[in-house]
Amino acid sequence: MKLLTIDSSTSSCSVALTSGDQVVAEHFLSGTRTLSSRLLSSVDLVLQGSGLTMADIDGLGVALGPGAFTALRVGIATVKGLALAAGKPAVGFSSLAMLAMNLPWASHPVCPLFDARKGEVYAGLYRCSGLPEALIEDCVAPPRAFLAQISGPTIFVGEGALRYREEIIAALGDDALFAPSFAHQPRASVGALLARCAFEGTHGIPLARL
Amino acid sequence: MKLLTIDSSTSSCSVALTSGDQVVAEHFLSGTRTLSSRLLSSVDLVLQGSGLTMADIDGLGVALGPGAFTALRVGIATVKGLALAAGKPAVGFSSLAMLAMNLPWASHPVCPLFDARKGEVYAGLYRCSGLPEALIEDCVAPPRAFLAQISGPTIFVGEGALRYREEIIAALGDDALFAPSFAHQPRASVGALLARCAFEGTHGIPLARL
Repeated sequence: MKLLTIDSSTSSCSVALTSGDQVVAEHFLSGTRTLSSRLLSSVDLVLQGSGLTMADIDGLGVALGPGAFTALRVGIATVKGLALAAGKPAVGFSSLAMLAMNLPWASHPVCPLFDARKGEVYAGLYRCSGLPEALIEDCVAPPRAFLAQISGPTIFVGEGALRYREEIIAALGDDALFAPSFAHQPRASVGALLARCAFEGTHGIPLARL
Repeated sequence: MKLLTIDSSTSSCSVALTSGDQVVAEHFLSGTRTLSSRLLSSVDLVLQGSGLTMADIDGLGVALGPGAFTALRVGIATVKGLALAAGKPAVGFSSLAMLAMNLPWASHPVCPLFDARKGEVYAGLYRCSGLPEALIEDCVAPPRAFLAQISGPTIFVGEGALRYREEIIAALGDDALFAPSFAHQPRASVGALLARCAFEGTHGIPLARL
C-alpha cells in the first residue's frame, strides 16, 4: 500500500511517501513561515524523488493534532484537497501518538508534549512497545497539573518537553528522562505507520469527518 | 553549531541540516540508482529549504560505514569535496551506531544489521540509553555466527534484520524483537548527533583520514 502522509502539527512540517513497510522518500522542514506553499512543494518533491504521481498513491494520511491550530488546518485541508482531486481515501491519526513513536521499544512510558501556548501543553502518555498504547488520553493542561498525574521513570519528548524542562525535572527529579535532540520533532514517516493501521482497521475516515 | 550531515550507508540516502539541537531540514530518499547526482540535489534542497548556503555551515558529518561499498564512497567523497571547497571541517561516525540510535532509550540492547551480501551481515550491538554504547564492536560475519554471541531480549533493526528475520527468530525465539517499519533505515538527522559529539571530542577528523 502506497501512502502519502503529511504532518504539520508543530513549527516543523514533513511529507512522507511509504510503500508497505518501507519509507520511500521524506522531506522535513522546520520553522516554515509559508507553510501552505511549502507543503505542496514538499509533496511534489517526494513524489518526483520516488518517480510516482498522485495516481500511484493508494491513500493519504494526516496528523489530526492536537498541535498548532493554523498549521494543522493547512495540513488537513491540503490532504482533503489532494484526496478529493485524486479520488483517494484519507485517514487521520493523533499527533501525540506519532511523536511518542519516535521512541519505539522505549524502556519507560513516553510523554509527548507540544507547547500549547498560554502556559499550557498538549500532552499524552504512551507505552511504546510495538504500536503506541495510550496510558493517559491526549489532553491540554498546564504542565504542572499534567505532571501531577505521572510517577516513575518517564521519557519526555517534543518541543513542549524542551520548553518546560525545568518544571518537569522539578516535578519528577531523577525519574525525568529526555529524548535525544533529533527525536523532538514529529515525523510524517512515523505517522505513516499509524495511517496504515487506520486504513487496515477502518479503510479510511470519510473526508467530511477529517 | 550548524552541521550538514550525509548518510549513504545503504540503498537509501539522506542529507540533514541541523542547528545545535534542532533538525532544520532533512531529505531522505530510498532506492536511489543515481546516488552521485541525487546526493548533491538533496544537499541543495536542504540548504535552500533552510535559507542557508555552505558559507553558513560550521562543519560536515558523514557516515563511514560499514555498509554499501560504492554508496559509502560516494557519500564520503561528496563530503570531502564540499568540506575542501568550502573550507569547513568534517567528521565521520559509525553507520551502525547511527542506525541503533533509531531506538533511543530502548528497553533492551539494540542490534543494527546491514545486509553485507554473500551471506554475511554488518552487525554491532549497542546499549541505547542516551548515546549509543557499543556492547559488541561493529563487524562483518555470517548471521548465525554473529547471533551466537547474543543472548536475552534484543531489538533487531535495519535491512539486515528484515532480510534475516527467520534466522534471528530461529536463534533467539521470543527474545528476538524487531524495530517498527519506519525505523529500519538510517537517518542523517540521527547521525548529526554523532557528528556533533565527534566535533566536541575531536574537532574533526582530518579530511585525508576520512
